[in-house]
Amino acid sequence: MTSPASSFDPAQLAAAVRRGERPALAQALNLLDDRREGSRRQAADFLRQLEAGQPGDSGHLIGMTGPPGAGKSSLTAALITVWRQRGLRVGVLAVDPSSPISGGALLGDRLRMKTSADDDGVFIRSLACRGEFGGLSAEVWPMSLVMLAASDLVIIETVGVGQREIDISRMCDTTCFVAQPGSGDSVQFLKAGILEVPHVLVVNKEDMGAVARRTLSELGTALGRAHTDGNWEVPVLSASATAGTGVEALADTLALHGKALRDSKCLHERRRQYRAQWLLKRLQEEFGSHGIKRLGGEPDLLRQLAEQNLSLFEQHEALRQRLLGAAAGDSNSTINF
Amino acid sequence: MTSPASSFDPAQLAAAVRRGERPALAQALNLLDDRREGSRRQAADFLRQLEAGQPGDSGHLIGMTGPPGAGKSSLTAALITVWRQRGLRVGVLAVDPSSPISGGALLGDRLRMKTSADDDGVFIRSLACRGEFGGLSAEVWPMSLVMLAASDLVIIETVGVGQREIDISRMCDTTCFVAQPGSGDSVQFLKAGILEVPHVLVVNKEDMGAVARRTLSELGTALGRAHTDGNWEVPVLSASATAGTGVEALADTLALHGKALRDSKCLHERRRQYRAQWLLKRLQEEFGSHGIKRLGGEPDLLRQLAEQNLSLFEQHEALRQRLLGAAAGDSNSTINF
Repeated sequence: MTSPASSFDPAQLAAAVRRGERPALAQALNLLDDRREGSRRQAADFLRQLEAGQPGDSGHLIGMTGPPGAGKSSLTAALITVWRQRGLRVGVLAVDPSSPISGGALLGDRLRMKTSADDDGVFIRSLACRGEFGGLSAEVWPMSLVMLAASDLVIIETVGVGQREIDISRMCDTTCFVAQPGSGDSVQFLKAGILEVPHVLVVNKEDMGAVARRTLSELGTALGRAHTDGNWEVPVLSASATAGTGVEALADTLALHGKALRDSKCLHERRRQYRAQWLLKRLQEEFGSHGIKRLGGEPDLLRQLAEQNLSLFEQHEALRQRLLGAAAGDSNSTINF
Repeated sequence: MTSPASSFDPAQLAAAVRRGERPALAQALNLLDDRREGSRRQAADFLRQLEAGQPGDSGHLIGMTGPPGAGKSSLTAALITVWRQRGLRVGVLAVDPSSPISGGALLGDRLRMKTSADDDGVFIRSLACRGEFGGLSAEVWPMSLVMLAASDLVIIETVGVGQREIDISRMCDTTCFVAQPGSGDSVQFLKAGILEVPHVLVVNKEDMGAVARRTLSELGTALGRAHTDGNWEVPVLSASATAGTGVEALADTLALHGKALRDSKCLHERRRQYRAQWLLKRLQEEFGSHGIKRLGGEPDLLRQLAEQNLSLFEQHEALRQRLLGAAAGDSNSTINF
């Protein structure tokens, strides 16, 4: 057990998170979510400890996207069952406002049916009420770091159509798009280049029969032989969360993409770049394009951000202070991430 | 004819735009699009002249949104034919990357078939290559002001699903969503609150029969008896751009919403607020939330912006200068809108 928070020990909390202790994980995520100044300092201390002891390519961060109603949550629940059978620990960050996970107890109930209520190997966190819909909130990236430290697999569930912000395809190792049978919009979005080509595409509800098969074939045609990550040919799979078919194969394919990234030594580099983009985005939100220009411009800044070895929040704070100027004691220079 | 641009006369250009002269309209839109400093000053002068002579509630600004493939462009073309028969002048700003208008000659060809090639009453401008997809580019608002000065109706065509930026529903008087028969995604997006409720909803391709009727009924159910603008009950219409059915009724409904806005004296106020939001957004992009805080915070700033009587670019420039500080001669304080 961790000690009570009265005497906060960031190193101890980081160690407990890495051991996958649920109370520690909950405490850490709450801390990252707490915007009071004292908590922000504690969060910075904690994240420094966590990042120091964590290899840059641990775990597998998977994004599940797709329109509401396609069954992302059911499919995630079915995948979790498979992963648990394989002995993997799973974290879920749900950021889809229409998701039964974020929306309430629905997936929680479904999960409880399938996995034991005291299964320490599954941890679910909803971010439903953060910020505006769709665009991933600023907390998602640091929270995913915490979940990666505690789990083998982390799933981020979101809508993911037409987002311009840090979207899921710019923060996950593997993006999986869940399509709804009979819905032409996904095909059209793909064709129009509005939907970024995912790493894995799956048509859910294959138990619907002909309409699911037609969507499968339309998506295959729309994609052609699309490649991402150099030579990864995007597979189009078929599954049914409710019937439980195709889920093992989907889990295998997701793992295969993760392995391909790791084998080609791309994973560590990709995460560094995503981290740099998160920092850039935070600074842009607070200081605009003028602020980014003052820090040397976007390409230069991204290069600097990817090279530095400070922890996430320290790096953010150092750059904030450069923009806020030398007036170290004024009211604007409090930690604000 | 306007005089050649060598001796630029902003008042003359504004007058020629208001008379609906095509070369003047083209010149004005090019000017707003030109990021060189000399052009920016000319654009500011021109827009001041234009705004000074233009009532705040002239014309009708209509947004056509919907997924790619739903037939927004064909429906727009069919509407234009109806409007031209009614003697109305029409401007089109196309910002959908998948649109045949932005994409090239397709709608241009279709339009040429239906309207005379030397019909001065239709003016089309594509913004396909501005900025990132979907999110309306910064130029759309000033360009729509220019088009409103020259036309009775201005159509902005965009994808409009899941955009967080100044989206079309925050700049048009009337938003019309074009749905694709058989596509459940639109229904799901509406239900999930991801798609903002439009003022008018139309299912295109009613010639597809049963599948179009089912979508019509699903959308009706998803909307319930949704209201916008206080007591405007959102109508769900059916049309076919190719068969030419339902287009007159759609034109009537759009006009009815415009009339309701004008009758309730909301139009002028709404445009002032949209203008203020455009300014806020521009300042946010350049100076971030920190800059907005320095100008007094968003609610206060929006109030100020809606009250002032400077022209659009002058107001923008005055606020930029306040944020850039007193160093009036330095390299950062050039006009930059």
